[in-house]
Amino acid sequence: MPGPLDERAILRVGRGGADRDRDRDPVVVEAPLELRSRDGRPLTVTMRTPTGDEEDLELARGLLHAEGVLAAGEADRVRRTDPTTLAPDEVGNVVEIDLDAAAVAERWPPRSLAATSACGVCGKASIAALELRAPPVACDLVVPAALVAELPDRLRAAQHVFATTGGLHAAAAFSASGELLALREDVGRHNAVDKVIGWAMRARRLPLDAVLCVSGRLGFEIAQKAVVAGCPIAVAVSAPTTLAIDLAERFRLTLCGFTRGGRFNIYSHPARIA
Amino acid sequence: MPGPLDERAILRVGRGGADRDRDRDPVVVEAPLELRSRDGRPLTVTMRTPTGDEEDLELARGLLHAEGVLAAGEADRVRRTDPTTLAPDEVGNVVEIDLDAAAVAERWPPRSLAATSACGVCGKASIAALELRAPPVACDLVVPAALVAELPDRLRAAQHVFATTGGLHAAAAFSASGELLALREDVGRHNAVDKVIGWAMRARRLPLDAVLCVSGRLGFEIAQKAVVAGCPIAVAVSAPTTLAIDLAERFRLTLCGFTRGGRFNIYSHPARIA
Repeated sequence: MPGPLDERAILRVGRGGADRDRDRDPVVVEAPLELRSRDGRPLTVTMRTPTGDEEDLELARGLLHAEGVLAAGEADRVRRTDPTTLAPDEVGNVVEIDLDAAAVAERWPPRSLAATSACGVCGKASIAALELRAPPVACDLVVPAALVAELPDRLRAAQHVFATTGGLHAAAAFSASGELLALREDVGRHNAVDKVIGWAMRARRLPLDAVLCVSGRLGFEIAQKAVVAGCPIAVAVSAPTTLAIDLAERFRLTLCGFTRGGRFNIYSHPARIA
Repeated sequence: MPGPLDERAILRVGRGGADRDRDRDPVVVEAPLELRSRDGRPLTVTMRTPTGDEEDLELARGLLHAEGVLAAGEADRVRRTDPTTLAPDEVGNVVEIDLDAAAVAERWPPRSLAATSACGVCGKASIAALELRAPPVACDLVVPAALVAELPDRLRAAQHVFATTGGLHAAAAFSASGELLALREDVGRHNAVDKVIGWAMRARRLPLDAVLCVSGRLGFEIAQKAVVAGCPIAVAVSAPTTLAIDLAERFRLTLCGFTRGGRFNIYSHPARIA
């Protein structure tokens, strides 16, 4: 069973290339996770950091919920495949969805179709496609500005693997009083968010009345995941994109970015920041 | 036609949430690009930063080359769709592949199959899948360590949009003497790499006898893109993953990471760093 950290032999090259030292260094693990239907059809493979069996289930739940394949109450449709039916190398790297492949296909239209709706290929079309399956965020959580400003530090303080490798993105859900509800790390920024939302799904906390904080940039896909989860406030340490801002505006998501050094920017729906 | 930068109204929140100023801020643009077959079938949609028509073609070329859909000499199979056949919103957001949908399907097996080859779902399987379509890197380019140490600064100095928004990843190809051959930026790290390799394809410079430098982390997908392009040295400003290192070891790619403050680590094939 792979873990989130491994070691590799390295050569450390000193300032200006002057000297080389042999060493071993901790490195973040990246490994494929396969989502498989009840009747054994591979549905998709995503590269992820193996942070544990439960987090693999969270990743699958969050991803399938964001994609519209699973409803908020269907956490139990995601489970480990019986390991006795797997090849040795597959153990720990396969998650099963309790739907047959035909049912998944019905719920999961090809991405290319989702993004090419009536009005063509543009940001407007991407947002229109989301309108077909997610309402604006209803939750009216209000959070003090001073708390928002602190979230990146709280996120970093709680990150375990990052401290060792510098290689991981983090996503976390914080309560309105700043309590850390769930923190997840992954080599993929979107995976870390999927894990947090998968946690919420399992904990029957969807819609997620919490603040989602991400360690890096915030683009369309992450804003979409927040909206589908019903999460009212998303805070990024770094920059958001135009399409993330436009989506946030349209779906009543409060979007904060460049949250650094006690300052931040609000891009949409500022009424939730007190 | 969208550009790489736009503006949005923001509220700047001061230290500790004390004050709020209305302002306008430059924001990096994210917009979907559709790849379409000659017979008009949508093949895939990727979110990218629209950095120009030519770079959209580079993105499509690099992506399709990395996926094994187009050979190195097939740059001309990628072109703009005749705008008179497009809806107004589609103009600037569609690239056409000069192959019909059936031919693309034949060349582009579903990702899920590619990653679940005989030996199961694990890093070994992902590497085995690549062995079926890419040889080890043959190029024996040698680069001074002092030059490698400088590449991130040269990359940053050449980044245009990043300076304004802080929102973009960069990838660049440098010659063995440190000359910047191509720099591309995108909201997606893998897109920036695809643009650089698409540039090389068009310039008939594949296999790419140059150093690929990326602004962030380096995982399996980017290492795979370098190998498929025949690029001998990949330099990351931040951390690599285990699977990227294992792939680099197997395919004779020299992988450098944590290239900061004049120092860096070599993870594989150090003979190319003098």
